[in-house]
Amino acid sequence: MKCVTQFAIAVAAMCVAGVVSAQQVKPEDAIQYRQGVMRAVGWNFGPMGAMVKGERPFDRTFFARNAKRLAALSEMPLEGFVPGTESGDTRAKPEIWLDWDKYKASMERMGKASTKLAEVAVSGDEKAIKAQFGETAKTCKSCHDDFRKSKK
Amino acid sequence: MKCVTQFAIAVAAMCVAGVVSAQQVKPEDAIQYRQGVMRAVGWNFGPMGAMVKGERPFDRTFFARNAKRLAALSEMPLEGFVPGTESGDTRAKPEIWLDWDKYKASMERMGKASTKLAEVAVSGDEKAIKAQFGETAKTCKSCHDDFRKSKK
Repeated sequence: MKCVTQFAIAVAAMCVAGVVSAQQVKPEDAIQYRQGVMRAVGWNFGPMGAMVKGERPFDRTFFARNAKRLAALSEMPLEGFVPGTESGDTRAKPEIWLDWDKYKASMERMGKASTKLAEVAVSGDEKAIKAQFGETAKTCKSCHDDFRKSKK
Repeated sequence: MKCVTQFAIAVAAMCVAGVVSAQQVKPEDAIQYRQGVMRAVGWNFGPMGAMVKGERPFDRTFFARNAKRLAALSEMPLEGFVPGTESGDTRAKPEIWLDWDKYKASMERMGKASTKLAEVAVSGDEKAIKAQFGETAKTCKSCHDDFRKSKK
């Protein structure tokens, strides 16, 4: 019960603080939006990972394109976590809304890391690119560990 | 039968021509990817449309942000239309693969229009922004009319 109350307070506080987008949307649309963005993230992230692991030839142009996309996508999902989207067809953990500031900071770390990756992908050498890819991947994993439920 | 044969030839030609991404993916992942990108397009497009129609106050910063996102997203979906994704949970019409060049050109028109929209959104006046939004919306509608099945 304490948890439920905390949760309600957290969501209410977000509304008051204007953290949530002014956009009035159906909860299922917001869930599908953020999941859609994350699918696009995964689609672009996967081949970069394969190149870093040596599973496919390193193609700097392709890598830089995907890194640029990743940077653009990384600033999008947060606004999809509006109140009312805590349940439904989602793997989002309640911790997102219970500790919104931590979640936001976690997403912002991913944004910063992928923006840096996009820069390094253009100007850096392969070693630097791979190192920054590792840093970016860490931010993904950390956020998934803390805020995403395991698959059933 | 003629149609089926044409379809098979079109898909085979795409493979030979290297139109299709080198990325080896499951068909359902490619479908979910392109649909995910289109959801993100819709999410960002909707509020711009509401501003243009006067249904919500015009916010130039917000509009410019969404237009920039639209431009970034618009170059992503095409590679999701790989062979093997003609059926399944998709509203894509067979015409996409039967006339790939036309489809590609149609998607590229959307890309160019939204890139211009992102530019105008930063430097232009409200009238110019709204006009370019209209041009962009036309490219969406045209492509949907030709290449997307109606909802069941």
